[in-house]
Amino acid sequence: MTPEEDARWMRVALGLGRRGLGNCWPNPAVGCVLVREGRVVGRGWTRPGGRPHAETEALARAGALARGATAYVTLEPCAHHGQTPPCAEALIAAGVRRVVAPFADSDPRVAGQGFDRLRRGGVPVTTGVLAGEAAEDHAGFFLRVEQGRPRVTLKLALSLDGRIATASGESRWITGPAARREVHALRARHDAVMVGAGTARADDPALTVRDMGVARQPVRVAVSRRLELPLMSRLARTAREVPVWLCHGPEAEPAAIETWEGLGARLFACPVADGQLDPAGVLRALGGAGLTRVFCEGGGTLAAALLAADLVDELVVMSAGVALGAEARPALGALGIERLDAAPRYRLVETRPLGGDVLHRWVRG
Amino acid sequence: MTPEEDARWMRVALGLGRRGLGNCWPNPAVGCVLVREGRVVGRGWTRPGGRPHAETEALARAGALARGATAYVTLEPCAHHGQTPPCAEALIAAGVRRVVAPFADSDPRVAGQGFDRLRRGGVPVTTGVLAGEAAEDHAGFFLRVEQGRPRVTLKLALSLDGRIATASGESRWITGPAARREVHALRARHDAVMVGAGTARADDPALTVRDMGVARQPVRVAVSRRLELPLMSRLARTAREVPVWLCHGPEAEPAAIETWEGLGARLFACPVADGQLDPAGVLRALGGAGLTRVFCEGGGTLAAALLAADLVDELVVMSAGVALGAEARPALGALGIERLDAAPRYRLVETRPLGGDVLHRWVRG
Repeated sequence: MTPEEDARWMRVALGLGRRGLGNCWPNPAVGCVLVREGRVVGRGWTRPGGRPHAETEALARAGALARGATAYVTLEPCAHHGQTPPCAEALIAAGVRRVVAPFADSDPRVAGQGFDRLRRGGVPVTTGVLAGEAAEDHAGFFLRVEQGRPRVTLKLALSLDGRIATASGESRWITGPAARREVHALRARHDAVMVGAGTARADDPALTVRDMGVARQPVRVAVSRRLELPLMSRLARTAREVPVWLCHGPEAEPAAIETWEGLGARLFACPVADGQLDPAGVLRALGGAGLTRVFCEGGGTLAAALLAADLVDELVVMSAGVALGAEARPALGALGIERLDAAPRYRLVETRPLGGDVLHRWVRG
Repeated sequence: MTPEEDARWMRVALGLGRRGLGNCWPNPAVGCVLVREGRVVGRGWTRPGGRPHAETEALARAGALARGATAYVTLEPCAHHGQTPPCAEALIAAGVRRVVAPFADSDPRVAGQGFDRLRRGGVPVTTGVLAGEAAEDHAGFFLRVEQGRPRVTLKLALSLDGRIATASGESRWITGPAARREVHALRARHDAVMVGAGTARADDPALTVRDMGVARQPVRVAVSRRLELPLMSRLARTAREVPVWLCHGPEAEPAAIETWEGLGARLFACPVADGQLDPAGVLRALGGAGLTRVFCEGGGTLAAALLAADLVDELVVMSAGVALGAEARPALGALGIERLDAAPRYRLVETRPLGGDVLHRWVRG
């Protein structure tokens, strides 16, 4: 195979792998395609919850046709005996001719051992194919393994002048239906959706994915230092149907903690720093519970706290063609920035029209 | 010729016409191309100051080859004897076979008479070709003829959260070099660049077009109710080289008026409404002096006054990948909007990356 052909099939495998994003935490969302004589004989992706693995699925579909095929896998195949036998063994046993992967897994239980096992089993391994794209897809998984926190995407749905509501709090709708639909698609590709207490109180959001046919709803996270969240809210009423996780500070009332536990919520006591809930501590707690990708939908105080602590990995901005003026509510709270060169900078990765609005996507510079 | 061929050549003529934007006010920026047997035999566009006309230029270049050619003109040829003999007569005299134009001129001195003259002279006229595109190019010219005011483009160079400077006023640079270069290109296509008094005082801007090789600099307009503009500013020191026009209210000190006149500025007394300089009155004064296209570069107070009065025809927004927070300076002053459905709405016409920033362009919905 030429490098171009390898890249072409790896692109297919990455596309398959992305189907698992948001569905298989704390496991990585891997894709696999088996190619024999220029034709796909098997394909798979990590299933909801993380099992079966992509390779298992692809091998099962290929059956005897796997013999002599090349396997394109978007992450190093596992080598350890866990709930299932290791994928490296399965690929060897199936008679796969060659394995192509972007790079080694940084999970210490894999970390090169999958490739070693394959090579010792007589299966050559090609790495470095579309490593950049694969690194983006697996960024949340790696961040959790390496730093113990999930990757954070911050959404801002704004007026032209950076406002999220009128002075009286009216925010429905600044952006149009296409942008709102995109928000549901973004929620579906994340493990969890997160909001601050102010937004939870003001908007009473459901934070579920609607009209997307998803198998597994993202966890709904609310951050509230004093755990002052309304008990008649949508989150409270549906906490048994779709997980609700609450991050609170040490001063939350034990009675409130008990009530929310009784409603079915999971509670996380988080540290306080500089008089507010420490955003790094919140993310550590969520990473500890297995989350790899968190989608933050505001409000301005939580968004500013995450930005100020340099904990926002990606920004998805939706700008509407409307002007609201200086009295309207700002998208971000205070950041404490005095000089321009101290302000957090992001690198543009995409801009496109989205219905009547503009979508622009930025990653940490 | 087929309609597709007509559209193709009209597109060429529109491209030529745009070269005159910003250079030929109060005249329209017209383009003309003469086509014979599928080949261009002459082309022209309105020259700086408005003379010669595009048709005159194209006919002069074509010479005898104009006989039997089709003339594509982006506006109805003139029929009145002004500084030059009418273009309709010149096209007939040159033996042009047919004239193609988007629509009639709304200038009452032309208004269908150019087409009438051509038809009476035996030259058939086709109209309605790329009328939408041509209407955009001539929007400033028509607005001045019909409503007495220039077309207004408002530029906003913003942080992701809609801020134009830090709390301390630092604004250099939020956007990158490509965006700043685009600003110069935009200035060059407008008759005038306009700022409010606050921006003139804070930034001491030159407001000239640099590194673009322009023949004619746009007029520099500053709006200051009390005419409180620094006499040591760049505008004051260069008022004899590039025009400076100042719009002030009735309470401006006569001494200040006299001083500025002495420096070479042109002064416009404008009416006050609701305790501030009336933006409609300012634009009427500028339209009366011949301007058809004004590029407003802020600040927040002037931008908000224009938006609130529904006098912004186009918005050019440049968003940088930087967050500044709620303490930073807002792009727009107060708009007095209480309900979301009362906020001015704009329709997206373009979005694209611009260096490391995003450009999005909007027109009145």
